[in-house]
Amino acid sequence: MVVVVQQNASEKDIEGIIKVLHDFGFDVHRSTGVNQTVLGAIGVKPDFDTRQVELLPGVAHVYRITEPYKLASRTFLNEKSVIDVGGVPIGGDTVVVMAGPCSVENERQIGVIAEHVAKAGAQFLRGGAFKPRTSPYAFQGLGEEGLKLMRKAADDNGLKVITEAMDASQLELMERYADVIQIGARNMQNYNFLRELGKATKPVMLKRGLSATFEEWLMSAEYILSSGNKRVMLCERGIRTFETATRNTMDISAIPVVHAKSHLPIIADPSHGIGIRDKVIPMARAAVAAGADGIIVEVHNDPDHAKSDGAQSLFPAQFDEMMKQVRVIADAIGRKIV
Amino acid sequence: MVVVVQQNASEKDIEGIIKVLHDFGFDVHRSTGVNQTVLGAIGVKPDFDTRQVELLPGVAHVYRITEPYKLASRTFLNEKSVIDVGGVPIGGDTVVVMAGPCSVENERQIGVIAEHVAKAGAQFLRGGAFKPRTSPYAFQGLGEEGLKLMRKAADDNGLKVITEAMDASQLELMERYADVIQIGARNMQNYNFLRELGKATKPVMLKRGLSATFEEWLMSAEYILSSGNKRVMLCERGIRTFETATRNTMDISAIPVVHAKSHLPIIADPSHGIGIRDKVIPMARAAVAAGADGIIVEVHNDPDHAKSDGAQSLFPAQFDEMMKQVRVIADAIGRKIV
Amino acid sequence: MVVVVQQNASEKDIEGIIKVLHDFGFDVHRSTGVNQTVLGAIGVKPDFDTRQVELLPGVAHVYRITEPYKLASRTFLNEKSVIDVGGVPIGGDTVVVMAGPCSVENERQIGVIAEHVAKAGAQFLRGGAFKPRTSPYAFQGLGEEGLKLMRKAADDNGLKVITEAMDASQLELMERYADVIQIGARNMQNYNFLRELGKATKPVMLKRGLSATFEEWLMSAEYILSSGNKRVMLCERGIRTFETATRNTMDISAIPVVHAKSHLPIIADPSHGIGIRDKVIPMARAAVAAGADGIIVEVHNDPDHAKSDGAQSLFPAQFDEMMKQVRVIADAIGRKIV
Amino acid sequence: MVVVVQQNASEKDIEGIIKVLHDFGFDVHRSTGVNQTVLGAIGVKPDFDTRQVELLPGVAHVYRITEPYKLASRTFLNEKSVIDVGGVPIGGDTVVVMAGPCSVENERQIGVIAEHVAKAGAQFLRGGAFKPRTSPYAFQGLGEEGLKLMRKAADDNGLKVITEAMDASQLELMERYADVIQIGARNMQNYNFLRELGKATKPVMLKRGLSATFEEWLMSAEYILSSGNKRVMLCERGIRTFETATRNTMDISAIPVVHAKSHLPIIADPSHGIGIRDKVIPMARAAVAAGADGIIVEVHNDPDHAKSDGAQSLFPAQFDEMMKQVRVIADAIGRKIV
Repeated sequence: MVVVVQQNASEKDIEGIIKVLHDFGFDVHRSTGVNQTVLGAIGVKPDFDTRQVELLPGVAHVYRITEPYKLASRTFLNEKSVIDVGGVPIGGDTVVVMAGPCSVENERQIGVIAEHVAKAGAQFLRGGAFKPRTSPYAFQGLGEEGLKLMRKAADDNGLKVITEAMDASQLELMERYADVIQIGARNMQNYNFLRELGKATKPVMLKRGLSATFEEWLMSAEYILSSGNKRVMLCERGIRTFETATRNTMDISAIPVVHAKSHLPIIADPSHGIGIRDKVIPMARAAVAAGADGIIVEVHNDPDHAKSDGAQSLFPAQFDEMMKQVRVIADAIGRKIV
Repeated sequence: MVVVVQQNASEKDIEGIIKVLHDFGFDVHRSTGVNQTVLGAIGVKPDFDTRQVELLPGVAHVYRITEPYKLASRTFLNEKSVIDVGGVPIGGDTVVVMAGPCSVENERQIGVIAEHVAKAGAQFLRGGAFKPRTSPYAFQGLGEEGLKLMRKAADDNGLKVITEAMDASQLELMERYADVIQIGARNMQNYNFLRELGKATKPVMLKRGLSATFEEWLMSAEYILSSGNKRVMLCERGIRTFETATRNTMDISAIPVVHAKSHLPIIADPSHGIGIRDKVIPMARAAVAAGADGIIVEVHNDPDHAKSDGAQSLFPAQFDEMMKQVRVIADAIGRKIV
Repeated sequence: MVVVVQQNASEKDIEGIIKVLHDFGFDVHRSTGVNQTVLGAIGVKPDFDTRQVELLPGVAHVYRITEPYKLASRTFLNEKSVIDVGGVPIGGDTVVVMAGPCSVENERQIGVIAEHVAKAGAQFLRGGAFKPRTSPYAFQGLGEEGLKLMRKAADDNGLKVITEAMDASQLELMERYADVIQIGARNMQNYNFLRELGKATKPVMLKRGLSATFEEWLMSAEYILSSGNKRVMLCERGIRTFETATRNTMDISAIPVVHAKSHLPIIADPSHGIGIRDKVIPMARAAVAAGADGIIVEVHNDPDHAKSDGAQSLFPAQFDEMMKQVRVIADAIGRKIV
Repeated sequence: MVVVVQQNASEKDIEGIIKVLHDFGFDVHRSTGVNQTVLGAIGVKPDFDTRQVELLPGVAHVYRITEPYKLASRTFLNEKSVIDVGGVPIGGDTVVVMAGPCSVENERQIGVIAEHVAKAGAQFLRGGAFKPRTSPYAFQGLGEEGLKLMRKAADDNGLKVITEAMDASQLELMERYADVIQIGARNMQNYNFLRELGKATKPVMLKRGLSATFEEWLMSAEYILSSGNKRVMLCERGIRTFETATRNTMDISAIPVVHAKSHLPIIADPSHGIGIRDKVIPMARAAVAAGADGIIVEVHNDPDHAKSDGAQSLFPAQFDEMMKQVRVIADAIGRKIV
């Protein structure tokens, strides 16, 4: 922690600040310049609230000098993590494709879609059995029945399953049916839940909160990592901005920035990121071009009658077209789509 | 729902749109103007995804014409709700004051603070036993022991207890120790939890999410109300903006806007709203001047050594000063602080 | 400037950083801790781009330690500035009230309004002759004719004139007709214009940009101050947030925060801040309660037929009611409205 | 305009609303449903302030049903505009590359860079002679001397010149030295200036404001178009979000969204968009993959000693690497880089 002293602070103020820092258990180094004194406080605990020092008489600014996260950082591991999901690597040279409907609706629907996306090159089947909905009056998913249908459709087509858990009470079902547990944007800072995920045996894909900074997102990953689950991947799904013409604003820059700060893989979700079908393909292309480790895309055999998010789901033929385009882009930057 | 047709749409497009609307179960009224056709679709279900219509050929815009919430709206109840908490009314003529430390730390601390704030006119003791913290390495609260200490300190001083529950597993303890259950900003859209709160016998104070719109906030209240708990109050605690000089930006306009849209009481939290002690008093004054039904304020007998949020906690003498000032302002606008 | 070195940086990296800092003309103080080295660089020019150092191998973080503004800061002048406008002080004990229509429309309109607001206690007549409008097809103001009408209406009623200049070409007219030159939110960072304002003989009221931070706002004030005009006041008029139910989100916290950082007076504009008539009064009360040095409010004798912003203009009787309420609140916090 | 009437509005309210609409000159169509009445008001002037109707007793919501811009819209021209700049087409099949330093510093610097980027495939030389700077104490550019040096360096290497004008007083110089006039983000809503640009004979590249919506951006383009200059292109350069790890957040989704709403070409500026050199290349790739009509990139022969924005300027060798990568991506989506 660096404490910058006000230009007009008295020697008494400075001694007072140093005393408080010692009381908090810090070692203090003092640099006295012509106009300004700077104090370096060594030994900051990760939970120290810097405002405690900001308020002291004579203090101008206080800066943390360490990232508040450790296990998620490049300082901890200076190479990209590769997460193995039953033989499918995430975070390596290949770009993984996850595809499927927003919600599992019935056996035929999920079966038809799984077969289609598998043939086109997807390695994961996505789909929701528990749906977080803004309105209490909206369709909330099929529950365990949905998970069963999804597992079967995936197994029949050689796919892995990624699906969302909304709270800790659903984790037992996840262990039974899922290969990767997806955590939604609105749960990104549900700390007790994150801690429970640290005890799961399945990898976790943590979506970015609607207005979360990169640091907050990595802090949430840190909760899971520090509770024992080392297989965490991140997912950019769009942030909230002032724009109302699109559902969210997909932050493509999250991809290179997260790669620089963290060793964790990052997946991009253009379906939620842009929120409307006809612009999903350019955003998927952009994500792959920027270096995403995977994309997760909504596909539906009959989007016009989908029970949720039909408007952002690709038609099967559009998915094929997207695959064709992103394959060429992956090649262009030295990566591969299976 | 109103569907505005594109100026250059063909008659075939328009017939196609009408057919889809009929298939979705709507009654359709058509208004044909010189330049533009507008379709009114009657009978929209609350969970209808308007993007399903936006995507149709020939559609320019789609607008919902009903609020997505009902029980929380002024349409449902066109007078302010008054919530009775064991004899203390919230939402009526009086402005209620809730005060106490961020975290319950030990018996002496909570006892001293409770006695002080009760004497100065607070009617509720606030304090946390379960603390949601950004860092997994930070102090997480005393748990049930904290609740016990808080209950005793409140009872000894004639105060009610308001405290935060972080997930559904803590609700049983809340029923035993709390008078009002506080839900934090990061849980505002934790829908399964909201539904569980609908079954609680205690009133709920729902904090606004960091980047939530008024509509989303009222939709979250709707989850609780529609699950059976009619005693819901809202709490403005600051939103996220681009400003980094303050922890949050307290949105004072939430007070008159929520009062216009909803019958639910609204409490203001200047401590989290501004995040730094020396500006809590002007923000508390502003909240009361704007018509808040109550304020919730952090007070600590020794803020410099508080286990959390010391920097935004008032010293006891500052709390007395604040009470003096807000009383005069409440009087000035025809309200009262006990 | 403080340069925090990465934990795994080599001694060679550190020497490289120090060399670059010397080349940029800084004195460097080195503090070597157990885990981390921190370099203090003294003598930073105000325009130094810290990213030049962030990019060097081995650098973890770079922090400026001085405010980029000087003349606007409390370090430069540690008491509040009082600006005298022809005998009316702004920034002292009194809270000044500025009122009038959005646009000057004709002689009768501006005369009637001026008379009304003067009687009710306003000291300034506000009104626009040059209107910045989002649409090129909207009413753009009466130009010089509007200024003449406004000057006359003000003189007839003992009021000062505050009105907006949209660019440097209008400054000559401002010198002739205005007492305070208002600069709109969208011009806050129009730097050439700010420099011209530094040469004006009239005081300037600088509105905050829609998404400006406090630092950026004060930097814009610095442009004017450093170009020679010492009479600058600030105006909070609402910022952009995610909320669409109100036109803007009025940031009441700007009042205590600006007072802590700067000696310049700050005026609040609840009309633009909330954007709808029925909520202007509570926001005006909140602004005065928070310590604003003045309020600027839109009033119209016939808002339903106003040429602009009628929806946020108070009826004359509402203005009287507002004055009554804000007077009591000013009293309650030891200030005065004439 | 569609006016939705409140569910509990009386017949008298409805008649009152209709009367007001007639008074404003609208034709009114009434649709009476079981629960709700909707009024269609035909003949809305582009500058009509819908809040004038929102305030009437009995009104629930008011929606505009026409875009406020015309000349910039797809309704006006339903194919992409191609702007010819002295033989270089912008908006067609090719993706144009504009490159050069942030500021023109001296003859040698601009000459060396121009030669390098021309060889690598750029068609435009970018560079600033007038620099808008947040700090009044920062380097403000070489002025006309800079324009001369830039013109010469461009001519020597077969490049076109794009450079920024900060206000109308500089337009005469632009006509003399520039091929495209660049308008900065902070001037996007400087309306008088936009009108002057409508009279320029040179094409204009209009950068998006830091917190501008797509509609506001297109409205600003409309100012220029409606004042007579039909050659307008847009430039996405990053918006402000909560993230502080990057200078701005580059909104890649602007590319497909603007293409859907408008016929104007859109250029992407990854240098300002991400603000730090090592992430410019992935963002440039993403922009081309998403369909941008061009990219504008900062390149400097000695970025460590650049007078401005060195930290986001590519080294010449990095520019070559970028060109190689974006060429392959342009090919992959059926476009071409010369």
